[in-house]
Amino acid sequence: MAERFEIVTKAIDKMLEEKKYAALRDILLVMYPSDIAELFGDMEEDRIPLLFRLLPKELAAETFVEMEPDAQELLIRGFSDNELKEVVDELYVDDAADLVEEMPANVVKRILKQADPEMRKSINQILRYPENSAGSLMTTEYVSLRPDMTVEEAILRIRRQGVDKETIYTCYVIAKDRKLLGLVTVKDLLLAEDDETRIQDIMLTNLIYVNTQTDQEEVAKMLAKYNFLALPVVDGEERMVGIITFDDAMDVIEEETTEDMEIMAGMTPSEKTYLKSTPLDLFRHRIPWLMLLMVSATFTGMIISSFEDALKFLPALTAFIPMLMDTGGNCGSQSSVTVIRALSLDELKFGDLARVIWKEIRTAVLCGICLAAVCFGKILLVDRLLMGNESVSLLVDGVVCLTLAVTVVIAKLVGCSLPMLAKKLGFDPAVMASPFITTIVDALSLLVYFLFAKTLLGV
Amino acid sequence: MAERFEIVTKAIDKMLEEKKYAALRDILLVMYPSDIAELFGDMEEDRIPLLFRLLPKELAAETFVEMEPDAQELLIRGFSDNELKEVVDELYVDDAADLVEEMPANVVKRILKQADPEMRKSINQILRYPENSAGSLMTTEYVSLRPDMTVEEAILRIRRQGVDKETIYTCYVIAKDRKLLGLVTVKDLLLAEDDETRIQDIMLTNLIYVNTQTDQEEVAKMLAKYNFLALPVVDGEERMVGIITFDDAMDVIEEETTEDMEIMAGMTPSEKTYLKSTPLDLFRHRIPWLMLLMVSATFTGMIISSFEDALKFLPALTAFIPMLMDTGGNCGSQSSVTVIRALSLDELKFGDLARVIWKEIRTAVLCGICLAAVCFGKILLVDRLLMGNESVSLLVDGVVCLTLAVTVVIAKLVGCSLPMLAKKLGFDPAVMASPFITTIVDALSLLVYFLFAKTLLGV
Repeated sequence: MAERFEIVTKAIDKMLEEKKYAALRDILLVMYPSDIAELFGDMEEDRIPLLFRLLPKELAAETFVEMEPDAQELLIRGFSDNELKEVVDELYVDDAADLVEEMPANVVKRILKQADPEMRKSINQILRYPENSAGSLMTTEYVSLRPDMTVEEAILRIRRQGVDKETIYTCYVIAKDRKLLGLVTVKDLLLAEDDETRIQDIMLTNLIYVNTQTDQEEVAKMLAKYNFLALPVVDGEERMVGIITFDDAMDVIEEETTEDMEIMAGMTPSEKTYLKSTPLDLFRHRIPWLMLLMVSATFTGMIISSFEDALKFLPALTAFIPMLMDTGGNCGSQSSVTVIRALSLDELKFGDLARVIWKEIRTAVLCGICLAAVCFGKILLVDRLLMGNESVSLLVDGVVCLTLAVTVVIAKLVGCSLPMLAKKLGFDPAVMASPFITTIVDALSLLVYFLFAKTLLGV
Repeated sequence: MAERFEIVTKAIDKMLEEKKYAALRDILLVMYPSDIAELFGDMEEDRIPLLFRLLPKELAAETFVEMEPDAQELLIRGFSDNELKEVVDELYVDDAADLVEEMPANVVKRILKQADPEMRKSINQILRYPENSAGSLMTTEYVSLRPDMTVEEAILRIRRQGVDKETIYTCYVIAKDRKLLGLVTVKDLLLAEDDETRIQDIMLTNLIYVNTQTDQEEVAKMLAKYNFLALPVVDGEERMVGIITFDDAMDVIEEETTEDMEIMAGMTPSEKTYLKSTPLDLFRHRIPWLMLLMVSATFTGMIISSFEDALKFLPALTAFIPMLMDTGGNCGSQSSVTVIRALSLDELKFGDLARVIWKEIRTAVLCGICLAAVCFGKILLVDRLLMGNESVSLLVDGVVCLTLAVTVVIAKLVGCSLPMLAKKLGFDPAVMASPFITTIVDALSLLVYFLFAKTLLGV
């Protein structure tokens, strides 16, 4: 994907042809796992296994984790049982659980067969939690300490156990019944003045933790808010079961943002990247909302049909319909997107509804007056003077601009309140973005338009 | 803001009234800085200084950093010079620099006067870098090691210096000329088998670093991609000048995402939160695009005017205009938002344009056929049979559905290609989202509609 790999890719192609494997290995050794995975993503598939086998064990596992599921599957199918065991042994439990979730059943069977019994148990434990829950995101590999250990003993334990843990920098203090008592950071341990100090005397007991059932988005927000390296996860009996690290939170935030944007553009969220999605995938994610919104537009059509006589009498009115609809849609989108984002950042709660509405009304009046004034001048100048359209009288101009101003206010009200109502009712507020708001505002703006036309122009 | 603070707020109100300051302090002591700041945000302003003064020094500084700029300013104006010095002394340099950027000139003067000379120098250095650059985001407080130190000496140095550093877990190995040579983590140091090992023998030399001028979005993406705790920042001569930590990256990602969403909804990005924005602020950020798009709709109006005779002859055609425009707009938004997001995640580059277009054409044909088929049936059933609208003949139905199918293809083509072209030309692709795409697609769909109507219906 990235252009900066083009040179490397060409060099590797040449070395592969000339079978210079030692030199190839030297190149890969200085690269980072996520860069190697990206390189593999751009490569002809049959070359990946050969290159992958050149990587030393640890780098191979780290690269494997960063690869796309289809490339992972391809590799596993080509692995001997021994090779598979080597990779699986090096994986962290949460990555292994992710892998098992992504792979088809027969591949999963092989993976679980090669995992050692303890890892198999942990994988199965993680897989039991609902998708997108803290339990399914966590890893069970953390450093645990006892409250009566001394600082020296704690450091010794980290030195002995640390190599297999996802983070050693936050250590959790656990009672005999596995209840979470507190935490100490490696910084606390290193800066402790006396090596004989007991952990229970320096540990932080005012803990922030999540439950295995907590939604992953909530977890990510908490990590971002408190700037923690990791959050402890406890079960229903408050026993410590795992940790979630900040890098997983960053992935969750990226994933959830993409999902929000997709929903806001009227699509059902997809887990595949764009280039990996087939047209059929895209079609399936896009057609439901398109269909629903198209059918809803029937009402807009009915409104126009019922005012057919007015339009026949004064055809010039038709020319302003797109402008009125689009401006209304744009105004509504602005408000809805602003509110949806503020809701997702927890800057707004339902109790703020009145404040939001009052703020939007004043904003809408400002926007409405400004747009109507410019529109009035524009119609006068362009439609009447430049194009010489006699039927666009000053009164018609007035009706259009009055409708515009009223539409702006309606659009902003609908746009700001629907997402908040949706959230209150337990729906995803992102659904109440542009496409949905536009459809509603279209119908309302046409009704206002024809009402004003009937009343003021007598058509 | 958050409902969970309501109980605490009430308890605090009561204690303030009864002047139970010791109990108040005990409550605040078990809270996290970001929670206290959130609590202050919901409180009457005159209570904040009193509560703030109850906090111990370090917690006070940490809370101060998490507060909104206007609350910070209020506090500083109430501080004695001594109180101000106490807070400033506890701040990390990057937070102090952020503060100085946000405050009005007279407050800045007081802050800089209270800062010790070294911090003043560092603040001024950071402020010289362009806004949103790595230089302006970094902190100069990191642990630096010499290559010839032993592991034992390095740990000793961390113990001595660590208390004031933003992170101690990644330490940077610096040559005498301040060039960056490598890095070691505290994990490497703790897990090193021999205390006498030299740092140069265990340090990682294959470094990922950024320049002071690198854009903050780029920095955040790199931290997220490589899962680092911190990234080193070097100057034009490759000398180490600071680090950026993962928590700052998370803030940047949140900020940039909000900005993208605002641009995609046709607003100029704002730095204030929604509830802090006045209607005038909102108006200023929303009116430019509304105005531009409203005026652009003149073309759509002209297209309709020039086909006025056709509409007069067959008024039923008018009723389908909103449905055609909206469906086109929705189709275009779907493609543009998908492509904009993929571009911002670096999943797509300009070289993929042909692949993207080919994918979108196939998706559009699928969507187009599906929508047109349903639309044909719907018009037959609703408009002809239910509403008995005789003028909607099978041929009119056909023209509408043919237009619909062609519009879908055009919309998806415009939607996917404009963001990529914008990026290629150095513009922000997010500008090419719903509002802009909708305006273009509207005009094109009307042209297609009237062309088909003229050709096939002879109107």
